[in-house]
Amino acid sequence: MPLVRIAFREGKTATYRRAVADGVHAALLESASVPEQDRFQVLTDHAPADLIYDPSYLGINRSDDIVVIQITLNQRTQQVKLALYQSIAAKLAKNPGVRPQDVLISLVTVMPEDWSFGQGKAQYVKSES
Amino acid sequence: MPLVRIAFREGKTATYRRAVADGVHAALLESASVPEQDRFQVLTDHAPADLIYDPSYLGINRSDDIVVIQITLNQRTQQVKLALYQSIAAKLAKNPGVRPQDVLISLVTVMPEDWSFGQGKAQYVKSES
Amino acid sequence: MPLVRIAFREGKTATYRRAVADGVHAALLESASVPEQDRFQVLTDHAPADLIYDPSYLGINRSDDIVVIQITLNQRTQQVKLALYQSIAAKLAKNPGVRPQDVLISLVTVMPEDWSFGQGKAQYVKSES
Repeated sequence: MPLVRIAFREGKTATYRRAVADGVHAALLESASVPEQDRFQVLTDHAPADLIYDPSYLGINRSDDIVVIQITLNQRTQQVKLALYQSIAAKLAKNPGVRPQDVLISLVTVMPEDWSFGQGKAQYVKSES
Repeated sequence: MPLVRIAFREGKTATYRRAVADGVHAALLESASVPEQDRFQVLTDHAPADLIYDPSYLGINRSDDIVVIQITLNQRTQQVKLALYQSIAAKLAKNPGVRPQDVLISLVTVMPEDWSFGQGKAQYVKSES
Repeated sequence: MPLVRIAFREGKTATYRRAVADGVHAALLESASVPEQDRFQVLTDHAPADLIYDPSYLGINRSDDIVVIQITLNQRTQQVKLALYQSIAAKLAKNPGVRPQDVLISLVTVMPEDWSFGQGKAQYVKSES
């Protein structure tokens, strides 16, 4: 159910990018009760001029290694969201070694009825499953 | 009003992609009361490593022909959403022949005031039209 | 906090694109109480076949210079949204000279808890700041 979009500055290796994608998914499993198989991610590369970020907003020292992660998912409690942010930052710091300052996360919450995983059905709506 | 983002694995022809875009729009007209001219779509291509999907989540057998469709639109009833999913899957199955298992849909609902279609105005807000 | 995605038809210069990004950000400062440093933008280029728009929906005469701007931001009043649309259109008309008819804006509103600006924290949640 989460649909995850991850934007990188161009120049990262496939291995690096995969590690980021893996880390985000592992954090969703660990902190947001997402099933292991519930994985759908779109990764994009951007030229420096096309991924614009502020290098110090809120006193956080960002670099060109910034990773912009936008996750569309069903509503979660505030507590779960806070745990998710910590988990993503911790996992990306461990592998591939993204500085926590460079991990920007934006959530967009939706409802179970807002998803169709195939077959033209809304699998999260009781009468459809 | 719907803003539609459609992500493909790279390698599809322009004709194939256009048929997908056309089918999604036709389904929005048929099932979600969208005016014919209300069409705004962004199509993107992704290398295999950049469009990650689970091949069997919820028992649905997905392939590299997966199409990830994210639609930002004004709120609809659950009934309309369910009809929309069926309609999109049916139209894409017919042309260009996307397997219904490969049609993933994510809706993001917003309010009429969340749109400006040009001229710096919010055309869906009564006082602005 | 706003995460801004700006989609262009391919062929615009870097200077033109930067002016659009600058104008959108300046409008957010002016009309939506966004701090100057709160700037995160992703710009994308699309082939003609991949950025589909209706050339006259709602009687607005659009061209291939269309700019599709999607802004994820915390909730604002309707009044602020209306002022934001006007401000974006006015600034882009001035520089780089985008016709107001070609400025399409979609807002997606979220909550303060839906953001992490780094360090794995939710900086807009009181207990986290």
